[in-house]
Amino acid sequence: MIEVYSWATPNGHKVHIMLEECGLAYRTIPVDIGDGDQFKPDFLAISPNNKIPAIVDPDGPDGQPISLFESGAILLYLAGKTGKLLPDSTRGRYEVLQWLMFQMAGVGPMLGQAHHFRVYAPQKIDYAIERYTNEAKRLYSVMDKRLAKSRYLGGPDYSIADIAVFPWLRSWKNQGIDWNDHPHLKGWFDEIAKRPAVMRGVEVLADRRRSITDDKSREVLFGARQYERR
Amino acid sequence: MIEVYSWATPNGHKVHIMLEECGLAYRTIPVDIGDGDQFKPDFLAISPNNKIPAIVDPDGPDGQPISLFESGAILLYLAGKTGKLLPDSTRGRYEVLQWLMFQMAGVGPMLGQAHHFRVYAPQKIDYAIERYTNEAKRLYSVMDKRLAKSRYLGGPDYSIADIAVFPWLRSWKNQGIDWNDHPHLKGWFDEIAKRPAVMRGVEVLADRRRSITDDKSREVLFGARQYERR
Repeated sequence: MIEVYSWATPNGHKVHIMLEECGLAYRTIPVDIGDGDQFKPDFLAISPNNKIPAIVDPDGPDGQPISLFESGAILLYLAGKTGKLLPDSTRGRYEVLQWLMFQMAGVGPMLGQAHHFRVYAPQKIDYAIERYTNEAKRLYSVMDKRLAKSRYLGGPDYSIADIAVFPWLRSWKNQGIDWNDHPHLKGWFDEIAKRPAVMRGVEVLADRRRSITDDKSREVLFGARQYERR
Repeated sequence: MIEVYSWATPNGHKVHIMLEECGLAYRTIPVDIGDGDQFKPDFLAISPNNKIPAIVDPDGPDGQPISLFESGAILLYLAGKTGKLLPDSTRGRYEVLQWLMFQMAGVGPMLGQAHHFRVYAPQKIDYAIERYTNEAKRLYSVMDKRLAKSRYLGGPDYSIADIAVFPWLRSWKNQGIDWNDHPHLKGWFDEIAKRPAVMRGVEVLADRRRSITDDKSREVLFGARQYERR
C-alpha cells in the first residue's frame, strides 16, 4: 500500500485526489507542518526540501520500493504507474506537461505568496499585497482564456494538470479573486469540485488542519530557518 | 531547425544550455521582456502565460510541428527527443524529475522573489527582503546537503535537473548568499560553469540584455496587468 506523508494543504490535496481518481490503496501519515514535523529526520530522509507531500510506494519500478517528493513528480509517477490521467500520445503528454509545469512554477508559488501577504503575514504590506493579488488575477485570466478554447487545462481530457490546479483555486477568497471576471474557469472549477474522487480527496486529513494564527505555527512556518537549526 | 523564443534570463539560459548540450540546431527569436514583447499576440499564441522561453520544433511528434512553453516542459521534451540528460531507467528518471520539480516550484519562483525585493522593487521592504533571503539560504542548504551525498542533483549523472538549477545560482549575489556556507554546492557550481556547452548557453542573447532600471521596464515587468490591457 502506498504511504502518503501529507497534510490538508493544496499540495497535499493534489496527491490525495490523484490517488482517489486512480483507485489506488493508500495510507496517510500526517505531517503536522504547524508543529514542525517536516523537520524531523525520518521525514527529511524522503523529502529533503522539508515539504509535504511525499510518498513511499513499496511496489515501485522493478517491484522495488521508491520514495518521491514534489507533488508534480508524484502526479507524473502515479499517472505512469496506472496509465491514467495523462494522454497516451506523445503530443498530448507534452501539452499536459506544460500546464502541469505552469501550475508548479506559477499557480502554486504565486498564490502561496498571495495567501502569505494577504492573510498570514504579521504585518500588512501594501506593495506585496498588490503585487501578489495582481499576479493571482493574471494567472486566473491566463487559465480563463485557455478554458475558453479547451475543455480542460491540459487538452480535451481531464488530466493531472487539472488535478494540480484545482486545490489551489479553492482558496480564491484569500487571493482577492472575483469569479465574475473568470467565467470559463469558474465553470471548470464547479465541474471538478463535483467529481466524487475530488470530493473525497479534499477531505483527507481535513479534520487535522488548524488555522495558522498561534505564534508557534507562525514561527515554524515563516521563520523556518531558525527552527531547522534547533 | 528549432525556434527558441527567449531572452537572457535564467529560464531562457536553461533552454539555451540544453540545446547546446544536445548539439541541436536552433534559432533564437528575441522576446524583449523589458519592452513588452511577451504581450504580443504572436507570442501569446505559443506562450499563453506571457513568459519566456517557448519553442517551436518543426520536427515534433509524428514529424509534425509542436510548440511548447514552460522551461521544465521544454527540458523534458528535448531530453525525450534526443535521449540525452535524463536516465534510461524509470527509477532514475523519477529521481531527476523530483529535483527538476524542486527547481521549477522552489528555486526559480523563490529566488525570483529574492531578486525582486532585494534589487528591483522601487521600495525596500525589510520583511519581504528577510523572508526571501531566508528562503534562498534554505534552498541553497537543501542543495548543499544533497550534493554532499550525490554527485549531481538528480543522481550520479549530470542531467536536466542540474541544467535547470545552474542559471539561477549565477545571481547568488542578488540572493544574499555566502558561498562559504554551501561548499558542496559551490564545487558543483564551479564544475558546471566550466562545461563548454554551458559557457556557450549563458552567452546566448546576453548582448541584448539591459538592466531593469528605467521606468518603462519596471512598468512592463512589475505592473504587467495594466500593460496587458493596452
